[in-house]
Amino acid sequence: MLAPCIAITMGDPSGVGPETIVGAWSDPEIRRVGRPFVVGHPAVIRRAVELLCLPLEVVEIESPSEAAANCRLVPVLRSGSDEAALVPPCAIDPRGGQAAYDALLLAARMALAGEVAAIVTAPLHKAALWQAGHPYPGHTELLAELCGVRDFAMMLYLGHDAQIRGPSGLAVVHVTLHMALREVFEHLSIAEIVAKAQLADRVMRRLMRGTVGEAAAAGTSNSRPRIGVCALNPHAGEEGLFGDEETRLILPAVVQAQAAGLDVQGPFPTDTLMVRARDGQFDAIVAMYHDQGHIALKLLGMHRAVNVTLGLPIVRTSVAHGTAFDLAWQGRAETSSMVEAVRVAGLLAQQR
Amino acid sequence: MLAPCIAITMGDPSGVGPETIVGAWSDPEIRRVGRPFVVGHPAVIRRAVELLCLPLEVVEIESPSEAAANCRLVPVLRSGSDEAALVPPCAIDPRGGQAAYDALLLAARMALAGEVAAIVTAPLHKAALWQAGHPYPGHTELLAELCGVRDFAMMLYLGHDAQIRGPSGLAVVHVTLHMALREVFEHLSIAEIVAKAQLADRVMRRLMRGTVGEAAAAGTSNSRPRIGVCALNPHAGEEGLFGDEETRLILPAVVQAQAAGLDVQGPFPTDTLMVRARDGQFDAIVAMYHDQGHIALKLLGMHRAVNVTLGLPIVRTSVAHGTAFDLAWQGRAETSSMVEAVRVAGLLAQQR
Repeated sequence: MLAPCIAITMGDPSGVGPETIVGAWSDPEIRRVGRPFVVGHPAVIRRAVELLCLPLEVVEIESPSEAAANCRLVPVLRSGSDEAALVPPCAIDPRGGQAAYDALLLAARMALAGEVAAIVTAPLHKAALWQAGHPYPGHTELLAELCGVRDFAMMLYLGHDAQIRGPSGLAVVHVTLHMALREVFEHLSIAEIVAKAQLADRVMRRLMRGTVGEAAAAGTSNSRPRIGVCALNPHAGEEGLFGDEETRLILPAVVQAQAAGLDVQGPFPTDTLMVRARDGQFDAIVAMYHDQGHIALKLLGMHRAVNVTLGLPIVRTSVAHGTAFDLAWQGRAETSSMVEAVRVAGLLAQQR
Repeated sequence: MLAPCIAITMGDPSGVGPETIVGAWSDPEIRRVGRPFVVGHPAVIRRAVELLCLPLEVVEIESPSEAAANCRLVPVLRSGSDEAALVPPCAIDPRGGQAAYDALLLAARMALAGEVAAIVTAPLHKAALWQAGHPYPGHTELLAELCGVRDFAMMLYLGHDAQIRGPSGLAVVHVTLHMALREVFEHLSIAEIVAKAQLADRVMRRLMRGTVGEAAAAGTSNSRPRIGVCALNPHAGEEGLFGDEETRLILPAVVQAQAAGLDVQGPFPTDTLMVRARDGQFDAIVAMYHDQGHIALKLLGMHRAVNVTLGLPIVRTSVAHGTAFDLAWQGRAETSSMVEAVRVAGLLAQQR
């Protein structure tokens, strides 16, 4: 059986996307579980290869099936117009927004048609996307619309390493995400917390099957992901002294998720829970709001963190950084997040 | 000049306090900047020495001036009644609460009278304290009352090490602390944020003078602490899309603190701010609520974190952990936080 095809969208040609893609090409990890290729404009990818002075040949392909796991060749499936090649570096340009949009649209359609097993997205710039006439908050919402999905969640993920001791890494699924902290309270509910625990369970089962060799070696090949649930309040509410969401919402959600067969515990004070999760006591964390999860995972591995969109009918991962106009096209961009995004996409695609 | 006397309160005899104190005694760091002695019951401290099989002699002293910086002797100034010696390990016992209260009271009075330069507190158990008839939320509120102070703040501190790259370590001062997350919003104000930035500035100036040798060696002996201020909302509010506290409260507070001569910047998205702070770009962080600061600092050094009470007329530090009944009197307690608490107390006492 051929390894699954993984489409990597170029993102905004003005940002760090193209250079992180070609920079990642030299890492064999991205070809270990799949055949990656780029969706975007060949001229932009060639320019990134020249920027980094890499011994890579950019070859245009007509269909995903032509993608070969060759470390010297970067297969590119052309999307959108030639205007992508005219976008200057580090600038908000509607042509950059349009190019990112075109690449994403083509990749998503191929994924929905089963022509690719997963998509990995390089960053787009929201303002450029809006100037191009596509007023979406970001990739995720656009993909959800393309897939006809209303319930989705963003997971932040770090693979196993010297710091993240869990054999299958550590995932954080957020119950609420891009909203004011003040609005979090009205968006928390037992049903939402249970739903996020279930999404975390499902995706970690797949990642644990994918890393089962390492897990078995570490003596923890239990197939049920161990999920820890964050408290909302300091000291997990200190027995009702600092808020009641723990007793009113989070504990009932944990009980309900346990009854549904999940290995879930909590609510725990988030500051010590994150230390326990780092040390391998949990495979996944359900966080109540954005910063709870992001403060921890950025500290534990900002450059190698990966976003995984949960709830879509297709596999989609992305780098956990933005277009980074402050350092784009200078050859200084970190490629670890891209490598990890492709690796995790491949693992998830294999374990569908 | 004799090194400053540092009074270490025994805490609840039922918890990990006594063993962390005698465990810390073998670390020369605790005598480098002061003459530490224990306030509590000699029999309890002797029992902890026996537990850890340490070559230490517990000697009773009558006054702080008898404390000598001798690594073989643990000077103990007796406080409270002999009932402290009868408290069983790992239990909520009013006699344990009373013993912790007595030690704190004596130490605080000596500090207020100028007989000791600083106090370091081992943990007490709130329920035991309450059962003993002293219904305070904790040490800090009791000390504030004893000192006649209404404006105080808790700072969490990590000294310089391989991870915390700032030459004088990293402090987090919280604008709000022990309250429900829901109540944070009404407690945030421009005045409160400015006040906390000023407290952070003042304490870090002292710690930077104390570590000036290392700072000069690292080429960053700037005397103004670099203070970073956390946003409240994700992405620092994403230009008003996710809340307005950044523009309405935090930015005006930063501008006001800058006008007052502080080297303060922000508000920044907290997830990346904490990474920059770890990497040495800031000496202190002003956090808006408990978990914002605690998630980061516990991940960066749970066992060596120190609490410093700001705003008191006396120097007071404490370990950043509780009585830990689950592991007390088994000889397994980490002593790093106690060592750091004594070291930081000594530094602050020297730089008053």
